[in-house]
Amino acid sequence: MPVDLEEWGVRKRAFWNRIWEDLEIGYLDKDLLPLLIELNLRPRTYTLSSCSGRITLVDSNKPWARRGTNVVFKKHSPITREELLRVVEEPCAEALWLIVSGPIIHASTASLREAVELLRIARRAGFKHSGVLSMHKVKGIVVEMLTGIKAIHIIKRGEDFVTPVSELSKVAAIANELLGDAKEALKKLVNEVRRSRPRRLDSFIVEDLWRRQYPFTP
Amino acid sequence: MPVDLEEWGVRKRAFWNRIWEDLEIGYLDKDLLPLLIELNLRPRTYTLSSCSGRITLVDSNKPWARRGTNVVFKKHSPITREELLRVVEEPCAEALWLIVSGPIIHASTASLREAVELLRIARRAGFKHSGVLSMHKVKGIVVEMLTGIKAIHIIKRGEDFVTPVSELSKVAAIANELLGDAKEALKKLVNEVRRSRPRRLDSFIVEDLWRRQYPFTP
Repeated sequence: MPVDLEEWGVRKRAFWNRIWEDLEIGYLDKDLLPLLIELNLRPRTYTLSSCSGRITLVDSNKPWARRGTNVVFKKHSPITREELLRVVEEPCAEALWLIVSGPIIHASTASLREAVELLRIARRAGFKHSGVLSMHKVKGIVVEMLTGIKAIHIIKRGEDFVTPVSELSKVAAIANELLGDAKEALKKLVNEVRRSRPRRLDSFIVEDLWRRQYPFTP
Repeated sequence: MPVDLEEWGVRKRAFWNRIWEDLEIGYLDKDLLPLLIELNLRPRTYTLSSCSGRITLVDSNKPWARRGTNVVFKKHSPITREELLRVVEEPCAEALWLIVSGPIIHASTASLREAVELLRIARRAGFKHSGVLSMHKVKGIVVEMLTGIKAIHIIKRGEDFVTPVSELSKVAAIANELLGDAKEALKKLVNEVRRSRPRRLDSFIVEDLWRRQYPFTP
């Protein structure tokens, strides 16, 4: 199933512009920026919604059940004991889970060869759970890059505590440590993508970076 | 990259025979058998190492770091409070994590078309994190089928408890509930694969099932 390069290219530019709009309105997960640039410099890749690693608190019977309303806390940097306490002291509808997630990167490629190359790069950087999610003539071949970095810890069910309040500073410390691993993994991926740059970069992206006066090492 | 069908077929038969050897020596995760049969009945698919969902206890600084030695408990069925207590009472070298994992199914397909079809089936069954892991002329196109079902809960770090012993029966109950979801997800996948059977089944597998007197609904 060959990808329609023209339509794919239109989408690449739209998603690229979105990154900079999101940055401007403070919506972008900033830790991602170096990686997003590096991936979009590849002529046959563009990036989709991604995450640099984060800590969330979810009020939900099952920790994987996501509705917009049940993420009660979200942060892409370390959590303080006070932040954690503030959420824990609120009443909880179902169960309160603290979740640390490693980086998740989604990219679309214009060819299967490029998708396989991204998977190899990702695996070299320790993103062992990476794979091709779907293939589409216009949307391209969607690759997910994923590590095994994860913790999903139950704090309380209703008001019945599994992890006592007295132990929450330990939980925050451990969560922050794991988040540190997530950010390290991300840096490793940026370096691996940079090391594997194709000979020709995407000239639209290169020029746009100049225009935006955004420093990048050629 | 076309798959070498002859070599691929040799591997399919070898992996198929291994399933029955593993069953005989009690090494097979038995809950998997209906799914393994259903997938192998597809002429262009065979199954690789898979798991029906399990509860493990891991003694490790980071819960994702796996060496053979640090899995101190593993069970594909519910854990009892006593089993959990027995492990928790032992001294712990680094940190003790209780991990509930949903089903993970690995399969090799002989074509990209078949891989994409498996991804569609998996997604219909709620295995939303499924993807193509790698492509290889002889090993085929490797597909991973994965749900979001997971919990990774810290019990203690060294002998410093985050979850007190008094709360461990709650932890066991919650873990068993999540494991129940894992087994339900597996059943849903079996049904979805059965519903999507191709018109022609793999005649070698069909005949071998007759020979083994293993009941299957044609």
